[in-house]
Amino acid sequence: MSSQLDLVETTEAAPTRRGRRRRGGGDKAGGPELFPQKPFKQPRHIYKPVEAVSADELESIHEASMRVLEDIGIDFLHEEAKEILKAAGADVTPGSDRVRMDRAMVEELVGKTPEQFTVHARNPAHNLTLGGGHIAFSCVASAPNAVDRERGRRPGNQTDYRNFLKLAQFFNIIHCVMGYPVEPVDIHASVRHLDCVSDMIRLMDKVFHIYSLGKERNRDGLEMTRIAMGLSEEEFRKTPSVITIINSSSPLRLDTPMLQGLIEMARAGQVSVLTPFTLAGAMAPVTVAGALTLQNAEALAGIAFTQMVNPGAPMVYGGFTSNVDMKSGAPAFGTPEYIKAALVSGQLARRYNLPFRTSGVCAANTVDYQAALETTLSEWGAINGGGNLIKHAAGWLEGGLSAGFEKFITDIDLLQMLAEYLTPLDVSEEALAIEAIRDVGPAGHFFGTEHTQARYKDAFYAPIVSDWRNYETWQEAGSPIAYDKANTLYKKALEAYEAPALDPAIDEELSAFVAKRKEEGGAPTDF
Amino acid sequence: MSSQLDLVETTEAAPTRRGRRRRGGGDKAGGPELFPQKPFKQPRHIYKPVEAVSADELESIHEASMRVLEDIGIDFLHEEAKEILKAAGADVTPGSDRVRMDRAMVEELVGKTPEQFTVHARNPAHNLTLGGGHIAFSCVASAPNAVDRERGRRPGNQTDYRNFLKLAQFFNIIHCVMGYPVEPVDIHASVRHLDCVSDMIRLMDKVFHIYSLGKERNRDGLEMTRIAMGLSEEEFRKTPSVITIINSSSPLRLDTPMLQGLIEMARAGQVSVLTPFTLAGAMAPVTVAGALTLQNAEALAGIAFTQMVNPGAPMVYGGFTSNVDMKSGAPAFGTPEYIKAALVSGQLARRYNLPFRTSGVCAANTVDYQAALETTLSEWGAINGGGNLIKHAAGWLEGGLSAGFEKFITDIDLLQMLAEYLTPLDVSEEALAIEAIRDVGPAGHFFGTEHTQARYKDAFYAPIVSDWRNYETWQEAGSPIAYDKANTLYKKALEAYEAPALDPAIDEELSAFVAKRKEEGGAPTDF
Repeated sequence: MSSQLDLVETTEAAPTRRGRRRRGGGDKAGGPELFPQKPFKQPRHIYKPVEAVSADELESIHEASMRVLEDIGIDFLHEEAKEILKAAGADVTPGSDRVRMDRAMVEELVGKTPEQFTVHARNPAHNLTLGGGHIAFSCVASAPNAVDRERGRRPGNQTDYRNFLKLAQFFNIIHCVMGYPVEPVDIHASVRHLDCVSDMIRLMDKVFHIYSLGKERNRDGLEMTRIAMGLSEEEFRKTPSVITIINSSSPLRLDTPMLQGLIEMARAGQVSVLTPFTLAGAMAPVTVAGALTLQNAEALAGIAFTQMVNPGAPMVYGGFTSNVDMKSGAPAFGTPEYIKAALVSGQLARRYNLPFRTSGVCAANTVDYQAALETTLSEWGAINGGGNLIKHAAGWLEGGLSAGFEKFITDIDLLQMLAEYLTPLDVSEEALAIEAIRDVGPAGHFFGTEHTQARYKDAFYAPIVSDWRNYETWQEAGSPIAYDKANTLYKKALEAYEAPALDPAIDEELSAFVAKRKEEGGAPTDF
Repeated sequence: MSSQLDLVETTEAAPTRRGRRRRGGGDKAGGPELFPQKPFKQPRHIYKPVEAVSADELESIHEASMRVLEDIGIDFLHEEAKEILKAAGADVTPGSDRVRMDRAMVEELVGKTPEQFTVHARNPAHNLTLGGGHIAFSCVASAPNAVDRERGRRPGNQTDYRNFLKLAQFFNIIHCVMGYPVEPVDIHASVRHLDCVSDMIRLMDKVFHIYSLGKERNRDGLEMTRIAMGLSEEEFRKTPSVITIINSSSPLRLDTPMLQGLIEMARAGQVSVLTPFTLAGAMAPVTVAGALTLQNAEALAGIAFTQMVNPGAPMVYGGFTSNVDMKSGAPAFGTPEYIKAALVSGQLARRYNLPFRTSGVCAANTVDYQAALETTLSEWGAINGGGNLIKHAAGWLEGGLSAGFEKFITDIDLLQMLAEYLTPLDVSEEALAIEAIRDVGPAGHFFGTEHTQARYKDAFYAPIVSDWRNYETWQEAGSPIAYDKANTLYKKALEAYEAPALDPAIDEELSAFVAKRKEEGGAPTDF
């Protein structure tokens, strides 16, 4: 029976393998293809999140972070920000950057944020819902290096940058790109954002991210997004279409470019994700609870601030608390402490009715057992923690120091499995299969039954990397490991990639804007 | 600061590294050793299990399996078993093996099983609690092959068998051994159980398993366990001290040796785990709900039967439902369908107040990304599903066709991480660290604080396999992958292993029993 099924599969696949659809992918999922993909769709949290602390314990963390905001305060390194804070009634210490806010003010301001909102893509089929039970996966971001088998590890460049964008566009399980997958250092810093945002608009039609590295870059990115969306400035302000990630400078500090970013994005009605970089034992207390207290204080300070700028501006609560290796100071990811921190961060975000950003990350230097172990355990925290925006979920290696092409592919398999895990189990009368059980009877086999024949094609997730051949067949094939298969597949995906259509008028307007800004010298590089 | 901490660590570690404790391990955990281990302790489920179906949906699966037991029935291939069933009021079709039971009878009988019980080890410090919130990890069992880097894959033999037992004894995170880690085919089948159980008693002092392959083997195993425990026959019947796993011959059949095993174990007051082998699409319906219906019917039929033999006999509900690769028929593990099945199996076990057995398994042929991905996702199902006895959790490869020495070690890291994940988060005032946050202030660093100094040594889980060195240092060391490190570590663990003490009187009695049984020709090999 097994070989019979195989024949059916092969016969049906044959026409499409020769035809153009072989190079398809993207939303063109359908028959058996090179990469069998389900259409673009955000998974939903259908299971209750796992709670790592009780309601009382959660309040202790909340209370502790309120005491930090009230008694210790946060440094806001930006004059305009301090003016805004003062005007809103915060306690700004004269002649200093220190700002204290009482809990009533913080809770009132944080309460103004929307619980759930849509982020628009230039292809409306790729719009995202952030918050509620929705999940969006984004790929590795901000890695200084790219790595693959043939070319090894090298500083990021434009070609690698573009190739990662193509993979992010190609795979439907990647819902958005939250930063340059790899930093293209071969483009001058003054104009890099112009070229990179152009690429994100042209090579993809999914939601993307602009960096907050000085207000000029925010303004350029916002204008380019507006052009790509074909919206007026007024329409754009009402249409969240681009996201920035703000990492506070833990402990207790929001730097100038971050505050400029928060101001520009909030004024433009666009999305900021506030993610403190609280590594327990380094920039945060060595206890997970202490690191979470600091994370929560910093995140809420930044979020509250944006609501002074523009009440109702869409915000995301970011959690990135992990621990460091106490021997070397190196950050660790996917650790037991990491998972607990992710679960509690999710509880905190839900307490404030904010969408929750977390990550799929690892410390491994290559695509080995460790990489999968740490990445899967990070996702354990992300999914069980109720994560809404799950960053770095494909391609992240070495604690973020490199973006791996093979890792991108192995992670796609993981993410597709998680999406499948998040589909409800069918417990209909037909699925319970009593008649099939009766028909087969004791000592029978289900391969040949009508019940199986009617369902076998879509019954189970079919992995793109995992190798389920038996040992002998696998050995004859040269004993390939997951890394080998991923090495082949990322190249095939790049071959199969097709650029999404772009309205020529928008294309032209975008080019003109970039040309003008380049003529003007781009953005300052002393941020 | 980072190098300072490193120095402290090195200085403190130096004396023990030279001393005998270097070869320690086992329960002798303490200072920094070759394998920093926590003492033997069963982790507890401190988080609520994840429920994959609603209470109503769970009842649908329960109802469906009751209809299978009432309308379709199960074949019991054993005359004495059928007599017992008939006497207890079950509907045994004359001249056939088919047995039907109504739901009232099934629920009443299943209700007689203990919800939680102790399984005694010959070292009382290694006693297990099965059920409630307790977790026990056991290593790979019943693999026909052993594999490691140097010697490749070979049929199981006594040396490999013994080496796996030594690893199981050495690592405190392995709480019991549920079957021969690898089948030693170099020992004649008639006496293999005598030699193997002797080894389990002598090389370990943890809870172990005897196979149900004919009543003579059960009786020998029970007697050897009784001798090892130093108990009278009457005391032994009141002291659960050994476990057997019964895999029903899905679909709908319990074979003779299984029923003999259930009878012998129940009469001796010992533990049976009833685990149907319900692979969706092969021996079970292609739908997960259908496979679970079959699993539940078979498990409850066997469990109900044992309560006719000896009401109150300790039983465990086993779930092993997974899917097959529909192209090849090969079993798959750690798939999305596998996780859902594990979660629902846990819900079913809890519905009947039975301890829940599940597994940590994979289909991978070697210790690569796939192996970790599938194993970690299996554990995702096991831990989130409320698993009490988690089988195959170290060393399992190839869907159970081989036991891997390197895989054993990488899995130990995973299990230790899970145990750490299952420790409660400290949210005490000191852990919230407000004073440390105040002392460090903005732009400071926590490495040097008193709060960190007092806690850094035990603050975080220290992995035994994961390599957290930076890329350059790692590359200079030859770019080792997890597999390489595990290859070194399993040999060091075998070197460090020390046999547990055994009372000479027991040793002698055991030898005499084995000699006598060998003289008698051992057990029949026509099971």
